[in-house]
Amino acid sequence: MTLIVQKFGGTSVGTLERIEAVAEKLVASRRQGHDLVAVVSAMSGETNRLLGLAHEIDTQPNPRELDVLLSTGEQVTIALLSIAIEKRGIPARSYTGAQVHIRTDSAYNKARIQEIDAQRIRDDLSHGRIVVVAGFQGVDEKGNITTLGRGGSDTTAVALTAALGADECQIYTDVDGVYTTDPRVVPEARRLDHLTYEEMLELASLGAKVLQIRSVEFASKYQVPLRVLSSFESGEGTLITAEVEGMEEPLISGIAFNRDEAKLTILGVPDKPGVAYHILGPISGANIGVDMIIQNVGRDGTTDFTFTVHRNDYLKALKILRESSRTLGAREVTGDDKIAKISVVGVGMRSHAGIASTMFHTLAQEGINIQMISTSEIKVSVVVDEKYLELGVRALHSAFELEKTPGRIPSSL
Amino acid sequence: MTLIVQKFGGTSVGTLERIEAVAEKLVASRRQGHDLVAVVSAMSGETNRLLGLAHEIDTQPNPRELDVLLSTGEQVTIALLSIAIEKRGIPARSYTGAQVHIRTDSAYNKARIQEIDAQRIRDDLSHGRIVVVAGFQGVDEKGNITTLGRGGSDTTAVALTAALGADECQIYTDVDGVYTTDPRVVPEARRLDHLTYEEMLELASLGAKVLQIRSVEFASKYQVPLRVLSSFESGEGTLITAEVEGMEEPLISGIAFNRDEAKLTILGVPDKPGVAYHILGPISGANIGVDMIIQNVGRDGTTDFTFTVHRNDYLKALKILRESSRTLGAREVTGDDKIAKISVVGVGMRSHAGIASTMFHTLAQEGINIQMISTSEIKVSVVVDEKYLELGVRALHSAFELEKTPGRIPSSL
Repeated sequence: MTLIVQKFGGTSVGTLERIEAVAEKLVASRRQGHDLVAVVSAMSGETNRLLGLAHEIDTQPNPRELDVLLSTGEQVTIALLSIAIEKRGIPARSYTGAQVHIRTDSAYNKARIQEIDAQRIRDDLSHGRIVVVAGFQGVDEKGNITTLGRGGSDTTAVALTAALGADECQIYTDVDGVYTTDPRVVPEARRLDHLTYEEMLELASLGAKVLQIRSVEFASKYQVPLRVLSSFESGEGTLITAEVEGMEEPLISGIAFNRDEAKLTILGVPDKPGVAYHILGPISGANIGVDMIIQNVGRDGTTDFTFTVHRNDYLKALKILRESSRTLGAREVTGDDKIAKISVVGVGMRSHAGIASTMFHTLAQEGINIQMISTSEIKVSVVVDEKYLELGVRALHSAFELEKTPGRIPSSL
Repeated sequence: MTLIVQKFGGTSVGTLERIEAVAEKLVASRRQGHDLVAVVSAMSGETNRLLGLAHEIDTQPNPRELDVLLSTGEQVTIALLSIAIEKRGIPARSYTGAQVHIRTDSAYNKARIQEIDAQRIRDDLSHGRIVVVAGFQGVDEKGNITTLGRGGSDTTAVALTAALGADECQIYTDVDGVYTTDPRVVPEARRLDHLTYEEMLELASLGAKVLQIRSVEFASKYQVPLRVLSSFESGEGTLITAEVEGMEEPLISGIAFNRDEAKLTILGVPDKPGVAYHILGPISGANIGVDMIIQNVGRDGTTDFTFTVHRNDYLKALKILRESSRTLGAREVTGDDKIAKISVVGVGMRSHAGIASTMFHTLAQEGINIQMISTSEIKVSVVVDEKYLELGVRALHSAFELEKTPGRIPSSL
């Protein structure tokens, strides 16, 4: 007998038919003897509908009241799903975040889970009930309703898995697992059976939007086995754990990419202490997030400084940078919002030096110029002209032989 | 400085514009120095929309889960109203029934309020906040969400008024007060300034659907001054209290009526002990409510027995009565679902014997035959043919001079 936490996102519970299908799946699993906790999101579109109502009244709605409003979305789903389960003859019980004491801090709209009292859920499970919990929401010390921010239902599921000591946390989505890269770009892309948390974090943050980053961090912290599965198709999905053991450890897990970024460069900045702070301080002061940052060694007492921001913030960042440029006495400011970032990710590269050179060689062979490079222990990212994105991803996918089942070092290394 | 609880029903908060209008009204009242607690219902149509979702899944949805679902309706309203108040620069705070510990029993869908912990609301009021509470909902001893049943928001408002020791409970509706009778039937109908709880109970239960009966009982029990006002027009409305003192006490407050009932008669029943029980037992066993009951003195060892039920239950009741008739050896069963009930209501009739005779005389003059009569301390009800309803109500309204301001005994007595 295993205890499994299953999370169903907005698309998986987007209509009454889909809610019934989720109930069917849970009931079948319960009849096989599993103890089950379901964590659900609001029906797709509902959170946006509620947000729309609030924004019609006030463009900056009171954050506490916004959470009171938004939390009704999941509450509707837990009730409907429980009704559908009960109809099938299996006892079910729904709980809001407050009812199972998903205690968070008081940061409305983006609260963080601090602790969960799992006793009530354990009691229900011991009575054979399927427990249905509202994702995305909690309650602060004073009893105020909070929400965890977009994608927070994944975090709720992982936190509950940890608090209950459950065997596995299954995240049901509209894809059947994590792929070596986006199959729309590379039709040969292959579903991965197994990944490490670190790899998933790099893949998620780099554009493979299957799981919310925070939930993976959380899973890693509490060593919760996480599985990504399809709500609509059967299959084993992708299991994410701390270690992928043995011979089958692949060198490279996948190729992530995005075209959400834009780059900005300030040229000929006098090279003296504090220059990075003077450039980036005003940018983060304007609430603009910065991703890659590159500063090369100076020359003739000046240096060049390049960084990337989200494409939506490009014009705002450019304006701020031009102002800083005058203050700093820099020579020139340039920018480009037609860029793409491609990243090769894999824990295997820790022990293999050749990954970066294979990557650069492959791109060079295709005539793709690399504009920026940044590396971490388990990834190498490059920025290239946007128009080369698909070509580059396909070439790399093939060079690292990701279409083949893992188990051997690609011949090109 | 007064503390007022104001309740706004579904129509009063039916659109975002109306929610903004309610916020405007509350803010103006707060700026005049009043301490305010607002109790709100779900936006009109929302409860039915949610019920519809549940019924699409299961025609008999699990009662506990139904309450989890329905309670989201008011939760949306409290959040939107609080956002609208905050936008106007007055601090507001919303609470669900659970958050302010509106403790009920565990009778899902029709729970009764047992106690309220008003401390949290008092704290907010002392900080100058307008407190916005979800009507219609509460929480049981174990933390399960409950609802009070249709119209329960009135009860929430009255219970909060009592718990807070507030000065007045104002119920905002789509009418500007309680009238001597339905103005659609008698255009001369007059708004009453003042009524007693007893009169309101008789008027409400007899078809003047302005206030929920349970909330009036509650107000009477805790001596909460209750005022019915229009959300859309200004005016003093109708105040409902324990006593209407002094010279201005009217003899008759109003004329209530309904055409929701049907009557059933069993003729020639052997007149022996237990016969009423044998007739009505199976009726109430089938969950059919009985209103008027009349049994005349027996003759020749047999008696006739007549009662009224809701028109929707007529055919079901008739079938049951025919079965009982066979068992009891009665002569005949008859019925009529084309009847109307007209009631004259007023505390003044306690001390005036002439009311009933004026009523009967007036109806006789119009050629209206009386089929059944039933009386209580402050009302006389008659059942007549449905087609005479409007004629009878108009004749009685005029005979008791209800169109005139009270203060004198009608000349006809």
